[in-house]
Amino acid sequence: MSDKRPIAVFDSGLGGLTVVKALHTHLPNENIIYFGDTARVPYGNKSQDLIQEFSAEITEFLIQKDAKLIIVACNTATALALDYLKRKLDTPIIGVINPGAEAAQSLTKNRKIGIIGTLATIRSGAYEKALSQLDSSIQSFSKSCPLFVPLIEEGWLEGDVPTQVANTYLKELIQKQIDTLILGCTHYPLLKPVLSETVGDTIQIVDSAETTAMYAGKRLISQNIVNDQNDMGVLENYVTDLPVRFKRVARQFLGREIDHVSSVHIH
Amino acid sequence: MSDKRPIAVFDSGLGGLTVVKALHTHLPNENIIYFGDTARVPYGNKSQDLIQEFSAEITEFLIQKDAKLIIVACNTATALALDYLKRKLDTPIIGVINPGAEAAQSLTKNRKIGIIGTLATIRSGAYEKALSQLDSSIQSFSKSCPLFVPLIEEGWLEGDVPTQVANTYLKELIQKQIDTLILGCTHYPLLKPVLSETVGDTIQIVDSAETTAMYAGKRLISQNIVNDQNDMGVLENYVTDLPVRFKRVARQFLGREIDHVSSVHIH
Repeated sequence: MSDKRPIAVFDSGLGGLTVVKALHTHLPNENIIYFGDTARVPYGNKSQDLIQEFSAEITEFLIQKDAKLIIVACNTATALALDYLKRKLDTPIIGVINPGAEAAQSLTKNRKIGIIGTLATIRSGAYEKALSQLDSSIQSFSKSCPLFVPLIEEGWLEGDVPTQVANTYLKELIQKQIDTLILGCTHYPLLKPVLSETVGDTIQIVDSAETTAMYAGKRLISQNIVNDQNDMGVLENYVTDLPVRFKRVARQFLGREIDHVSSVHIH
Repeated sequence: MSDKRPIAVFDSGLGGLTVVKALHTHLPNENIIYFGDTARVPYGNKSQDLIQEFSAEITEFLIQKDAKLIIVACNTATALALDYLKRKLDTPIIGVINPGAEAAQSLTKNRKIGIIGTLATIRSGAYEKALSQLDSSIQSFSKSCPLFVPLIEEGWLEGDVPTQVANTYLKELIQKQIDTLILGCTHYPLLKPVLSETVGDTIQIVDSAETTAMYAGKRLISQNIVNDQNDMGVLENYVTDLPVRFKRVARQFLGREIDHVSSVHIH
């Protein structure tokens, strides 16, 4: 059978588009709905109550759009709202944290794993919990990096400033002799060149956008909801603020033009 | 007569507290209500429609709280929503842009004025318009500095990173030989030491928090709504997200503890 219903991907803003890009690569014939809550971005410094409320409003909208699988493509929302959403919803729903944790566990040799993310993600301890459930002998070290998202949105992806900011944030983790670093924020893959240079060759980087797309593919199979028609999947986008800025920045994330962007009012 | 009703100050988040601090200094016996829209902060990269909608919701709340004067202590909201609010409301209302523009006009000698602020403030051209209405021979040069607010909220107020970011942003304005620089964002006074060092002695800095507080004082007199009782004014705070983080960061802005913080749900 072939299930043409869309996979829905949501994020507080634009970062989740790195997951969309990875889905295009791994599951090219799946239709995708992307939802960016650009009127209320960012979530990283907001409370758990508020993030659960926002996430519930968004998933309700996505279910009305007939989503067959929902991906919470925001580490903050995964950390603070995924369990809550799973209890509320019947639609299959996955986050970005378990896929990242599993990939890191399979890569690490010395079982010392570093995690970077927003303030809210790091404070939640969600990665540490996921990692210790996979292997209780893993030591995890985390560091919040609140300046990375603004740097990326400003387009400062290389040069002195991002290098110095990365050095400042990652110093401690490098000293802990981690051999694996989880990018615990869907924006961070855009800083990968600077981050790779900062951590050097001995530390492997786990890009949660990639690992989440592969995890989504397995979930489609296990739920028997794959679209195996040989079409090119269509991407539809919804944002809560005006679409203009979204279109411009989305190009940077996806590496191509974006057509279908609508503005919706859910708050 | 003595009018004990409060002055209401609102901002998208915490930056407007620099205006509250200046009000404490210049008008110590006035009662103040501060409103920070922390559930939807920041406004700087959102659309005019949305900022007008948010500002209308907030001012409605403040009028219910019996505000005698409303200060829009957010440059972005002043630029994009002040005219709209003035048309809607009977309560006296002032923004931060005219006070800053007037102060800069009185300070400049060569009539070359620089303006820094968020993306939305700079794009609005509101300072340029205010300056050219004051003196059409003024040349103004503006630059958006989206990384300053996250730097300040991260507490990186000095050292290599803020210095390098400031150098990058201000280079062009210095080359234009401005003699006056308007800090067109209520967060920026916290970066004043770094900014002063970057621009050097020949450029004077206009702190819009200070100038707005003095402007508010004049407006109270002209409207005959001064509180001339010799009490210490009380500060009440309302935020749209949880109060915890607000209390912590507010201390940094006000230089003292904050007691009365309530969470309200207006969206």
